[in-house]
Amino acid sequence: MDRFSIVYRIMGTENEAYARAQDICLEQTVEFPAELVPAGFIQDHLVGQITKFGADGPDTYMATISFAIETTANELTQLLNVVFGNISIKPGYRVEEIQLPDSILDLYKGPRFGKEGLRELLKVPQRPLLFTALKPMGLSSEKLAELAYQFALGGIDIIKDDHGLTNQSFAPFEERVRLCAAAVERANGETGQNCIYAANITAPHHEIMSRARYAKENGAKGLLLAPGLVGYDAMRSLAEDDTIALPIFSHPAFLGSYVLGSDSGISHFALFGQIARLAGADGTIYPNYGGRFSFSRAECRSIVKGTIVPMGSLKASFPCPGGGMSISNIPDMIQVYGSEVIFLIGGGLFRHGPNLIENCKYFRSLVEAVSRL
Amino acid sequence: MDRFSIVYRIMGTENEAYARAQDICLEQTVEFPAELVPAGFIQDHLVGQITKFGADGPDTYMATISFAIETTANELTQLLNVVFGNISIKPGYRVEEIQLPDSILDLYKGPRFGKEGLRELLKVPQRPLLFTALKPMGLSSEKLAELAYQFALGGIDIIKDDHGLTNQSFAPFEERVRLCAAAVERANGETGQNCIYAANITAPHHEIMSRARYAKENGAKGLLLAPGLVGYDAMRSLAEDDTIALPIFSHPAFLGSYVLGSDSGISHFALFGQIARLAGADGTIYPNYGGRFSFSRAECRSIVKGTIVPMGSLKASFPCPGGGMSISNIPDMIQVYGSEVIFLIGGGLFRHGPNLIENCKYFRSLVEAVSRL
Repeated sequence: MDRFSIVYRIMGTENEAYARAQDICLEQTVEFPAELVPAGFIQDHLVGQITKFGADGPDTYMATISFAIETTANELTQLLNVVFGNISIKPGYRVEEIQLPDSILDLYKGPRFGKEGLRELLKVPQRPLLFTALKPMGLSSEKLAELAYQFALGGIDIIKDDHGLTNQSFAPFEERVRLCAAAVERANGETGQNCIYAANITAPHHEIMSRARYAKENGAKGLLLAPGLVGYDAMRSLAEDDTIALPIFSHPAFLGSYVLGSDSGISHFALFGQIARLAGADGTIYPNYGGRFSFSRAECRSIVKGTIVPMGSLKASFPCPGGGMSISNIPDMIQVYGSEVIFLIGGGLFRHGPNLIENCKYFRSLVEAVSRL
Repeated sequence: MDRFSIVYRIMGTENEAYARAQDICLEQTVEFPAELVPAGFIQDHLVGQITKFGADGPDTYMATISFAIETTANELTQLLNVVFGNISIKPGYRVEEIQLPDSILDLYKGPRFGKEGLRELLKVPQRPLLFTALKPMGLSSEKLAELAYQFALGGIDIIKDDHGLTNQSFAPFEERVRLCAAAVERANGETGQNCIYAANITAPHHEIMSRARYAKENGAKGLLLAPGLVGYDAMRSLAEDDTIALPIFSHPAFLGSYVLGSDSGISHFALFGQIARLAGADGTIYPNYGGRFSFSRAECRSIVKGTIVPMGSLKASFPCPGGGMSISNIPDMIQVYGSEVIFLIGGGLFRHGPNLIENCKYFRSLVEAVSRL
């Protein structure tokens, strides 16, 4: 019978770490005293099994634990629960990697567009893509739409709502989406380019899908969603809806606590790479190294790996490093990411000079120049 | 104009911590370079404001920051985003307390039953309530229902699905709910008591509400939901649905990373107390001190405070300490919690002796005896 495996980093002496690995086997499945677990199917199959265990540094061990696919009930919510539900509450366990057989992966569509599909949609076959955000919060829909127009004229590929723009009175969702989508279309008419506007549909439980539909019907060509606020399965559900079928960008808001603890939580690779992809993110936004956040260069590289690591027939997604970046970072980022990246610059685009359109054009020309090298 | 406040614990020297407090003001609202924030409404009102700042230990400061209520768009998702969205990704910030004015609190119904309502429903006016879980995963619906019957005969007040039971093939949701609800009713008919069965409706995005409805229509008298897996707003939405109107128990799965880092994340008080209540949890489940998890006695006390701290007209919720507890912990727990508590014992009930009904009766008699002292 089919099983899937999770690689955990476990802290402690060898004996402690092994006992913790054994604890995972019970805690994440039967949650029952070991001596009382019924023999047979439950004991032999449903309880997790340690398939690999070895040292990985001082008081650090790596354990691969396999679980029966039946434990997940074919649900992403329950898969995540088996991977890290109760264990999240115990210190000293970190999810490093998720290894799923095709029998599970086949249940997920993953990114609808993926890297290739997004490049086709945007008609940008090779260079890194350019991504920015409409901000600051507090501007009217008209002013945000004017910004969107300028960004698009300047050659940006994807213009998203800032993730804090939802349905505030000063820029209500429907009005904002209509105006921003129209502004980008108008600019496309002038430039002949294929810039898209991505609407933020992070919303109350019952409004996520209706906002997605409204956005699509009113000209948005992409969607932004923060799974830390709405749950990963809301994103999966959105990604699999054929009536919506727009590229999805995953925002990391409210997710930081999973990756900040080096001794617990979930690895950058698994969270921003594998899990985002399983949930259908075409682009996964995360804070770049060297910006105003704390991710290291190595952690960012590991996210890139998570976006392309083989996962059955799931498409690769685009890494979208952002967060306090400036245009001057681009040459260094090209060294790390190559061309298979979406550069997200928000406030930094305003900072470069007084003319926003010129700033965008400079950003674009720099990306084109360095990515040809 | 009305504002709400968040108390953050911030790490660093005084200068670093103050700069971080200033950073929160921008990062959680306009997410824009300080020097470019438009003057007027945005600068004066939408950007967060430090209203209090003081030392709280070595390299530890407490900052109270006020935000305009307009930033939240009257949405729980966006409120949580302002409280901790991007800041979650930066080390050195911890949400300690959420202070909301009535203008925000009035938007939320909070726990529909609350402590008093739950006591009325269960007809248990004074003593601690008894809570257990159907497990282990892998048993058939029939066997789980037989356990439910025995638990109810033994005098348990609330019997929930183990949080890992969702819709697995060996105990499908609908079948399990029907049989377990019926078994508890049968036992109630024999005992004259008012035990309730709480169905786990942690489920894919589109199935949460339909499972809740199915559970209600088929005799479940309570619901279990893990907001870490489905998002807090799914719980709020459920709690405010007058057509469902069942007590809700919040499960901590996948939430541990928020509280494990002492230098970052969200306090136990705010997460398991205030936020769970805002989302409508009538009972908030968390790992007790001294069990197989790591919470301290002080952290558990702080959760209790969060369940009763004044929050406008929101009802108090019940603390539900559980997780590796045994019956022998009860006398000590009474010292900490008094009578206003729901004791959740799962595997420990099976461990006490060979006869499950007798174990439950002993649990009940012990609780009755010590809570009379």
